[in-house]
Amino acid sequence: MQEHRTAEFIEAALDRLGIEHFRCGGTGVVGLQRNGDGPVVAFRADIDGLPIEEQTGAEFRSEARGTLPDGTEVPVMHGCGHDSHTAAALAACGVFERDRAGWSGTIVWIFQPGEETAAGANAMVADGLWDRAPRPAVVLGQHVVPAVPAGSVALCEGPAMAAADALKVTIHGKQSHGSQPQDSIDPIVLGAFIVTRLQTIVAREIAPQSAAVVTCGTFHAGVKENIIPDRAELTLNTRTLTDEVRDALIPAIRRVISAEAAASGAPEPEVEELYRFPALVNDAEQARVVRAGIAAELGAERVLTVGPGMGSEDFGGLATSIGVPNVYWFFGAYAADATEQPVNHSPQFLPDGELPLVTGARAAIGGIRAALGETREA
Amino acid sequence: MQEHRTAEFIEAALDRLGIEHFRCGGTGVVGLQRNGDGPVVAFRADIDGLPIEEQTGAEFRSEARGTLPDGTEVPVMHGCGHDSHTAAALAACGVFERDRAGWSGTIVWIFQPGEETAAGANAMVADGLWDRAPRPAVVLGQHVVPAVPAGSVALCEGPAMAAADALKVTIHGKQSHGSQPQDSIDPIVLGAFIVTRLQTIVAREIAPQSAAVVTCGTFHAGVKENIIPDRAELTLNTRTLTDEVRDALIPAIRRVISAEAAASGAPEPEVEELYRFPALVNDAEQARVVRAGIAAELGAERVLTVGPGMGSEDFGGLATSIGVPNVYWFFGAYAADATEQPVNHSPQFLPDGELPLVTGARAAIGGIRAALGETREA
Amino acid sequence: MQEHRTAEFIEAALDRLGIEHFRCGGTGVVGLQRNGDGPVVAFRADIDGLPIEEQTGAEFRSEARGTLPDGTEVPVMHGCGHDSHTAAALAACGVFERDRAGWSGTIVWIFQPGEETAAGANAMVADGLWDRAPRPAVVLGQHVVPAVPAGSVALCEGPAMAAADALKVTIHGKQSHGSQPQDSIDPIVLGAFIVTRLQTIVAREIAPQSAAVVTCGTFHAGVKENIIPDRAELTLNTRTLTDEVRDALIPAIRRVISAEAAASGAPEPEVEELYRFPALVNDAEQARVVRAGIAAELGAERVLTVGPGMGSEDFGGLATSIGVPNVYWFFGAYAADATEQPVNHSPQFLPDGELPLVTGARAAIGGIRAALGETREA
Amino acid sequence: MQEHRTAEFIEAALDRLGIEHFRCGGTGVVGLQRNGDGPVVAFRADIDGLPIEEQTGAEFRSEARGTLPDGTEVPVMHGCGHDSHTAAALAACGVFERDRAGWSGTIVWIFQPGEETAAGANAMVADGLWDRAPRPAVVLGQHVVPAVPAGSVALCEGPAMAAADALKVTIHGKQSHGSQPQDSIDPIVLGAFIVTRLQTIVAREIAPQSAAVVTCGTFHAGVKENIIPDRAELTLNTRTLTDEVRDALIPAIRRVISAEAAASGAPEPEVEELYRFPALVNDAEQARVVRAGIAAELGAERVLTVGPGMGSEDFGGLATSIGVPNVYWFFGAYAADATEQPVNHSPQFLPDGELPLVTGARAAIGGIRAALGETREA
Repeated sequence: MQEHRTAEFIEAALDRLGIEHFRCGGTGVVGLQRNGDGPVVAFRADIDGLPIEEQTGAEFRSEARGTLPDGTEVPVMHGCGHDSHTAAALAACGVFERDRAGWSGTIVWIFQPGEETAAGANAMVADGLWDRAPRPAVVLGQHVVPAVPAGSVALCEGPAMAAADALKVTIHGKQSHGSQPQDSIDPIVLGAFIVTRLQTIVAREIAPQSAAVVTCGTFHAGVKENIIPDRAELTLNTRTLTDEVRDALIPAIRRVISAEAAASGAPEPEVEELYRFPALVNDAEQARVVRAGIAAELGAERVLTVGPGMGSEDFGGLATSIGVPNVYWFFGAYAADATEQPVNHSPQFLPDGELPLVTGARAAIGGIRAALGETREA
Repeated sequence: MQEHRTAEFIEAALDRLGIEHFRCGGTGVVGLQRNGDGPVVAFRADIDGLPIEEQTGAEFRSEARGTLPDGTEVPVMHGCGHDSHTAAALAACGVFERDRAGWSGTIVWIFQPGEETAAGANAMVADGLWDRAPRPAVVLGQHVVPAVPAGSVALCEGPAMAAADALKVTIHGKQSHGSQPQDSIDPIVLGAFIVTRLQTIVAREIAPQSAAVVTCGTFHAGVKENIIPDRAELTLNTRTLTDEVRDALIPAIRRVISAEAAASGAPEPEVEELYRFPALVNDAEQARVVRAGIAAELGAERVLTVGPGMGSEDFGGLATSIGVPNVYWFFGAYAADATEQPVNHSPQFLPDGELPLVTGARAAIGGIRAALGETREA
Repeated sequence: MQEHRTAEFIEAALDRLGIEHFRCGGTGVVGLQRNGDGPVVAFRADIDGLPIEEQTGAEFRSEARGTLPDGTEVPVMHGCGHDSHTAAALAACGVFERDRAGWSGTIVWIFQPGEETAAGANAMVADGLWDRAPRPAVVLGQHVVPAVPAGSVALCEGPAMAAADALKVTIHGKQSHGSQPQDSIDPIVLGAFIVTRLQTIVAREIAPQSAAVVTCGTFHAGVKENIIPDRAELTLNTRTLTDEVRDALIPAIRRVISAEAAASGAPEPEVEELYRFPALVNDAEQARVVRAGIAAELGAERVLTVGPGMGSEDFGGLATSIGVPNVYWFFGAYAADATEQPVNHSPQFLPDGELPLVTGARAAIGGIRAALGETREA
Repeated sequence: MQEHRTAEFIEAALDRLGIEHFRCGGTGVVGLQRNGDGPVVAFRADIDGLPIEEQTGAEFRSEARGTLPDGTEVPVMHGCGHDSHTAAALAACGVFERDRAGWSGTIVWIFQPGEETAAGANAMVADGLWDRAPRPAVVLGQHVVPAVPAGSVALCEGPAMAAADALKVTIHGKQSHGSQPQDSIDPIVLGAFIVTRLQTIVAREIAPQSAAVVTCGTFHAGVKENIIPDRAELTLNTRTLTDEVRDALIPAIRRVISAEAAASGAPEPEVEELYRFPALVNDAEQARVVRAGIAAELGAERVLTVGPGMGSEDFGGLATSIGVPNVYWFFGAYAADATEQPVNHSPQFLPDGELPLVTGARAAIGGIRAALGETREA
């Protein structure tokens, strides 16, 4: 939620296009492209970066820095490709502006911050997004991914992206000198057993046909090799596609953490819920409309079908907060035969030249056009 | 090695006593108390602190701050009691100064920095300690500990404190988004298995009668709960009393680290030796001389015998560098019936009033006097 | 492969129906129901039991005993429901026999032993099954399961059941007295770390959307609590749905076993492949034919569609050995609202009264009739 | 407690010497060698074997078989060297018989079964040993070990051998088919985590200077690689030298077992105490008497001093049951320069020719003679 320069850049771009806009949710920007009567369609692009030091070697690589919750300053980059999303949305917006005769209605352009922390969509809704912008019939959005070849898009009906839960675990041990483990309750040994034990949940407790992930993304403990510290902090991130699996997974994690602390004779660790992303579910009927619109733009052979991904999105919150349907799709990052395809969140993530951007822009145009009820020959 | 203010404090105290001194090894201070012909005896007090925030609630609690090797500024305290050592040495020095008629010879007062990092003794020797100070017949030293009741001292012949080795382990994994573990090599899971597997070395590979410790004092990995990081850093600290056990322990640790990386399909981790403390061995004959001297000062019933401790000391390096014997003893921190006895390196560590300080000073006096060949009725 | 009494029972039943038969593959029985010109259709029922002591409390519960490979005698039961399969097949056979006017062609009834050990189908093929019986156009089979409500069947096109691999792992340690672990290489500790480490493969190395199972079904080591044994024996069983996942899983298992032995300083364990079941894949076109036939018999609303199951079957080997298609379906074991639904291989497994049996028989009749090219109004 | 043939052999030997004897505690034999007035001294030799298949290649290797508690027949051998003890005792008995003029008093020869299972000493006491034999002033005993060179003996004052506790752990899981781990509670995974977690007790909870062992000697679960079993059985054996350590160790083991079951969502495992051997403590004064007696027989340079061993013995129960002191020593098994020195309980354990036997006999003679108050020039 520190996307100040990005927000100013977007505002300047909208100004150049002559489109009215307002700030919403801190660094969020909403553009209102009004063009007579007709449906209201919202399109969301996310704009936030990640605390990763860019290692792409690109001339235009990020040199920006941000601040972690604990105050540490770190390098940041658009490691998840959100700059592509923003650029594609601005390009599409420009095309609609130059073609005002070709459509009617209103497009609500939502440039949303804080997707990675699940804070942005909620922040914009809480800041009165739908009081200040007209309510849409459908909310659209897209994401660049390596799994789809550049030049193509992929979408699905029904569940599209996973629910994500994040937990912060604070393990309380008992400090002692490293030469006297008998006077300690070692929080690093305890944390290590929590991590190893958590593996059994996905491996043994969840049905093999049900997708689930339990990732421990951070493990921090200790300041000196010869002092057994008094605490360890872990953060966990889970992915599930159904409520049934989620409702089995989270209690199992808590059960393991609690029991491993008991095995160490340690106090009950604190388990704090950092966020909950719901699963993102595409409305089946709207998905068919959008698919047809993108196919009219790119050609039907460039619109693929994919199963649900384990990534998560707070995109769904924009539509579910007002009870309207949404549709979300993916566009390709790399040529199918590219030898190196660094994934999102990698320090090397860098979509492949202009084709992804152009495809993203054209997919946005095709999808929005269809949702506006405008049709075009495929 | 950042004991600047402490060193200045010591220099001022020696100045007040009129004792010549010089800096040695950066923040080390050496006082030369010359008093005619006679033996040369060295007495060492260590002066360094630890990166622990003092939580004793004492009026005179530390509010000092220091800098970790990575540049982070942290609160520091004399968490191992080295301020007691320094104070006791200065008090003893004052007593000898006021009693110049009562002894002859030379006392070399070594106020040594950096004991906790094993850097200080070596730094002073490397900086020409024994070229600039006369070579002693014996080097003496002492440490405050909770395991001995306040008012008493304890010493032993032969091995007195453990050898310590410290290793830094850098685990190389492969970064990926937290929702896609299949694209990662998870360094936190690997680190957790290294920690759990290391437990078997002390439990199964070292003879139960042989003392050994393997502590993992720090475990740091990851910046975000939904990114699987590309590395984890662990530091390890070991304790052993004999070369035979040490020579079994260190290769076993390296074997486990290497094999667990192989189990994860990860590259070979880097294992860097941070330091090696040798075991501290008291010269048997000199120990009997010193014991008698302290007994003459405190009463024989206040001089106890203890087995070797698992703590480590770089003290031994001062004497072994010039091939002379050394003797090291412990003095008590708490009344035997004290309900709370926080151990060294605890944020609550605070010896119990004046008795420990007085005992430390008198033990130093008795030990030095005996080593100088002066005797006194017990 | 010890189904002697079951085989004799089947032979007597076929004799009563006047159907020619022959032994094949030891305790396998093949019935040839010839009825003029027309297609040849094979139907397979498996007849083997499991070394589980039946605890259903049924009057007709198994009191049979069998012999394990190591010679131990153990109680056995039809814990996987194969007696239902056999009974349903014999019932269907009787219906076809009484209705010879209603169809023409040849039905090959394959009563197959040794499904659980993957030995039976291969044994029958190796014993000349398809030289002695006419080659069929399609091979059909079915299995009773709790996941389908009694009275219904379920089938799918494409992958229907998982590939299974079984490995026997012999861990070589070094024996010693239990009080002297330092003289041993402890194979139980090593085996425990293999089991815990294997959990990471499904949890972290296989994509969450890809189904995979690694089960350690047996762990045997030691004869006395105070002797560290010199070996441990584990058996593993894996499930996968695609060759891609299988080809990642098995090498990962071998990598973990090898590396954990290295972590213990133990010799390389022996890993012996006990068997490989291929995945069972239903021919799509034949599956539609069979579905229609069963729907005609039971009503279309009683023919469900299911995703692939993680169970395994050697059924596929009967058809793939001669390059003909096969179709396999499930019939229900329990009323949908039954409060207790013990699963296959449970000591309490007991399908629910006559309905499962009748449904199994009618499904066999409908499927076979359709495969023979006979149609009937739904 | 199946030493029937050994007991008959001993009885025949005593008959040949003309010494009265009686059975006691099943297969125990007590010989009473009465020779006028004087002290009563008891000497104990243990006579039981172990379920190990002898692999020494000796001509006289054991081909005997025994029966485990579960009824399995297994090969047995005197894997702990108890045949040496018995032979040495019978030889010493013969020497005293031929030299009746050289001593007076009574020697109670206790040939004790069931040492390895801690059942024998108690069984003999319970069967009225001290009602049927005269009460001795001291009870003596010895054991052959590789750690002492052949021709020498070693003894110590105070603690001589470890306390041992044995626990049987029955883990209750939930059975399921191996392809459906989600329906199971996997007792093998749970057992593996118990074993790995137990390692932390010795490694982190017991002071490094305190000797302790936790061995899991047996792990048995499962009958088939594709069935997740409903239980696993482990047996554990612990060693400690002091009550303080023992009182920390056993509750820690129970805590780990209980917590790991909770981590699996499994019922509380059953933990059954199989036996408790107390530590064996030599009476200091009697040890000095015996040392002098053995030195008179073998030469003082052949009587060494050792620290406590981690092995255990039920020997102490014979004396403590009647409140008299005991002394226990070791005699050597191998020449000091023997290249191969298989330890007790190894299938290759075979003391080295006649020297160990002769030394054992002479040590018994010297020790008993001293305890009888007879002295001889060293």
